Amino acid sequence: MVEKQRGITIWLTGLSGAGKTTICQFLETELRSQDYKLEVLDGDVIRQNLSKGLTFSKEDRDENIRRIGFVAHLLTRNNVIVIVAAISPYRAVREEVKAKIGDFIEVYINAPLEVCEQRDIKGLYKKARAGEIKNFTGIDDIYEVPLTPDVECKTNQETIAQSASKILNKLEELRYIQPFTSPQLQNHHSPVG
Amino acid sequence: MVEKQRGITIWLTGLSGAGKTTICQFLETELRSQDYKLEVLDGDVIRQNLSKGLTFSKEDRDENIRRIGFVAHLLTRNNVIVIVAAISPYRAVREEVKAKIGDFIEVYINAPLEVCEQRDIKGLYKKARAGEIKNFTGIDDIYEVPLTPDVECKTNQETIAQSASKILNKLEELRYIQPFTSPQLQNHHSPVG
Repeated sequence: MVEKQRGITIWLTGLSGAGKTTICQFLETELRSQDYKLEVLDGDVIRQNLSKGLTFSKEDRDENIRRIGFVAHLLTRNNVIVIVAAISPYRAVREEVKAKIGDFIEVYINAPLEVCEQRDIKGLYKKARAGEIKNFTGIDDIYEVPLTPDVECKTNQETIAQSASKILNKLEELRYIQPFTSPQLQNHHSPVG
Repeated sequence: MVEKQRGITIWLTGLSGAGKTTICQFLETELRSQDYKLEVLDGDVIRQNLSKGLTFSKEDRDENIRRIGFVAHLLTRNNVIVIVAAISPYRAVREEVKAKIGDFIEVYINAPLEVCEQRDIKGLYKKARAGEIKNFTGIDDIYEVPLTPDVECKTNQETIAQSASKILNKLEELRYIQPFTSPQLQNHHSPVG
């Protein structure tokens, strides 16, 4: 275990299909390989465990984000690195959670809607277009783009390793982690973006 | 901070008014004085933060307990000592949460219903008797007594310090904490019960 690890919440926000889960998994592998204590709070898993019954109305989405924030806060203040991967489409509640947790970076996982829709890994865009899913972010519900994200990853222009490197660089710059020596990353581990 | 602290969930179950919160606060003070990393998950606070909208039906109570268990598990496996204070009236879901978390002791905070009702600190028994609150544990909803609690505190026969000592003794016996040297406790710190 890393000595005197500091906790932080790394909040990945972006459209469905933008690459949040992929980048999250990559980060998880990298950080675990360096023995950081880490928890992943994935939007879908949280819906199952903490938010059963909540809908996708604005009010319920905000409540869902607050619950994720509540748990992330508890972990972060106990020196755990927490990666949240959740669409979290509304700006105000993202700001609210950021202010509450303090040790927090907002990471905008940015891919154009057309790209996300083309990927359509879970087949959800197709369903949303067909009207089988309502309030789907990007189709019939708004996504409020982060105005001042701490990191922005453009997943249609960068490799996964490049995107992850940006995030790790930021953590290093803010002194949450030690300089990284992963062979997988060293070729990409220079200031980007 | 304590070196290499092990996480554990200390789950206080019992009727409203049995003394869960009081014992919880006492334990919290003692453990913090020894620099243990600690979080308290209080039933009422969790209802506010994770379970808004849940009722007091059996199904919703079970869901509430599972959510507390989910969060307690995340913290416990990251080496935090978690004290849960929640009525948690149903045996099966308590067992389920215990099995999931592993590092867990069930503490039965036991006071006779008459005593709890006489104390009636929050005025809830009065309201339940008047029919203003439905599904109130002990009045018109069942409390399933733990069959094999790890610790039992009889709060109508013991001082708060004695009850807390039993719990701390158990944690020490199981090697979750170091031997205790608190002046407040030393007179009571012998195997009890």
